[in-house]
Amino acid sequence: MKSHTDYLWFHTKREREFINITDRAEEILEKSRIQEGMMLVSAMHITAGVYVNDAEDGLIQDIEDWLERLAPRGDYRHHRTGETNGDAHLKNLLIGHQVILPITQGKLDLGPWQQVYYAEFDGRRRKRVIVKVLGE
Amino acid sequence: MKSHTDYLWFHTKREREFINITDRAEEILEKSRIQEGMMLVSAMHITAGVYVNDAEDGLIQDIEDWLERLAPRGDYRHHRTGETNGDAHLKNLLIGHQVILPITQGKLDLGPWQQVYYAEFDGRRRKRVIVKVLGE
Amino acid sequence: MKSHTDYLWFHTKREREFINITDRAEEILEKSRIQEGMMLVSAMHITAGVYVNDAEDGLIQDIEDWLERLAPRGDYRHHRTGETNGDAHLKNLLIGHQVILPITQGKLDLGPWQQVYYAEFDGRRRKRVIVKVLGE
Repeated sequence: MKSHTDYLWFHTKREREFINITDRAEEILEKSRIQEGMMLVSAMHITAGVYVNDAEDGLIQDIEDWLERLAPRGDYRHHRTGETNGDAHLKNLLIGHQVILPITQGKLDLGPWQQVYYAEFDGRRRKRVIVKVLGE
Repeated sequence: MKSHTDYLWFHTKREREFINITDRAEEILEKSRIQEGMMLVSAMHITAGVYVNDAEDGLIQDIEDWLERLAPRGDYRHHRTGETNGDAHLKNLLIGHQVILPITQGKLDLGPWQQVYYAEFDGRRRKRVIVKVLGE
Repeated sequence: MKSHTDYLWFHTKREREFINITDRAEEILEKSRIQEGMMLVSAMHITAGVYVNDAEDGLIQDIEDWLERLAPRGDYRHHRTGETNGDAHLKNLLIGHQVILPITQGKLDLGPWQQVYYAEFDGRRRKRVIVKVLGE
């Protein structure tokens, strides 16, 4: 069994951003030289998500609006700690903070429209995603 | 380490269907001859989900209604591309597109009521799910 | 490749409880002696969740309120079977029933605020979570 670990760093300019990280995941896979296995892509923060869906700008805006509708900015008990990002925690739980990408014959075995996204909900600071590859 | 990869194909008659794939996952596990490990079951499309829950018809209808309530059909920016399935993308994100099934002593190590479902949200075409087993 | 399997048992006093299981996951990791790999933490029930987020009491109450808002108690088709826990199934689907924790140099490779939680939505009975570690 082989394993390989890498970290992707982010420091967004805006509070919320959706960033396509598929190419960066592919690069890490190449470095790992793993041919068959699984790649975990997992946010190391509780106010950011990782998900798989379409690289289409209209849809990305739809996703942002939908997350705001189901997990809106507002007044949360969490804010008694001095934080103001309660909604970002709920958005993280809604969209999920991690995905597993299958690896077959040295490639990410994704469907034709599947792209991997980092979803920042509380940006303007350094944050990271762990990418861990396990296989052979 | 051993690995085994298989694909399940679907071509539903209706736009939306919920299909119990637990037996098919078990069959793939037997073929793999893996005794200890993990099985990734992951939709290769962005308008279909994979989840674990109960094989009870009333509940399945409850799940469908609930998904429609939280991610309704409607007018989405995504539809400017000519697509009409914006809601199917959101339903995919809500229920999730993949699960990991633990494998212990050559069996899927699921609880007594846990069944694996493929949830089609934009059917009537050929779609598939990757099943990848990793272990020993 | 090494693997290690353990089960965490729960029997909550209340119908709903949120229990931090990070330390128990760390203990299992130590027992496994695995240095590099992944740990699956997965509820074996369809009315309980496992998620990663903050160990902050206000936020935990926010999460409970939010789950109740999006997947409320109510009258579900599932209740025709004699069950009364339809909402607990939907809460399980919303928050997810499993996470994968990366393992690096013998430790759970989590961000500074990431804690692992068991979320009970239909308690007062014996339930369990499987913890399976794969790696080397």
